[in-house]
Amino acid sequence: MSEKAIFYHAGCPVCVDAERRLAESLDPQKFDVEIVHLGQDKGRIAEAERAGVKSVPALVIAGQPYHINFGAELSALK
Amino acid sequence: MSEKAIFYHAGCPVCVDAERRLAESLDPQKFDVEIVHLGQDKGRIAEAERAGVKSVPALVIAGQPYHINFGAELSALK
Repeated sequence: MSEKAIFYHAGCPVCVDAERRLAESLDPQKFDVEIVHLGQDKGRIAEAERAGVKSVPALVIAGQPYHINFGAELSALK
Repeated sequence: MSEKAIFYHAGCPVCVDAERRLAESLDPQKFDVEIVHLGQDKGRIAEAERAGVKSVPALVIAGQPYHINFGAELSALK
């Protein structure tokens, strides 16, 4: 069964590049990737924070945050 | 043809986790992933620097660095 991975971003250039290069490059046999734009879906910022996300772009896999480079602080999206 | 991706690390806990979760989770149809331990293979630190790597763990895909969380500064490995 594939594992859930959530990619949080905010539409920034660093985010878009990370989405294209990493989030969309995960093995589809292993992961079911959901892409969440926190700028458009602010209702999910709290969920990202609870998973430990401090900035975007970030991937959350098995509840663990993986920050990829740096686009924007999560606090700047509120 | 699969694209080359290089994962640079230094054996730190953050590195090992990122390797297991991300470097080994890239789509094998898209990427040929090489794992480089810069603590053991210091001769490749300069190559990582040229690609823009500032800290480990990091992935380099198509010449672009993707820093994943933070384990250690590259300068600390010299």
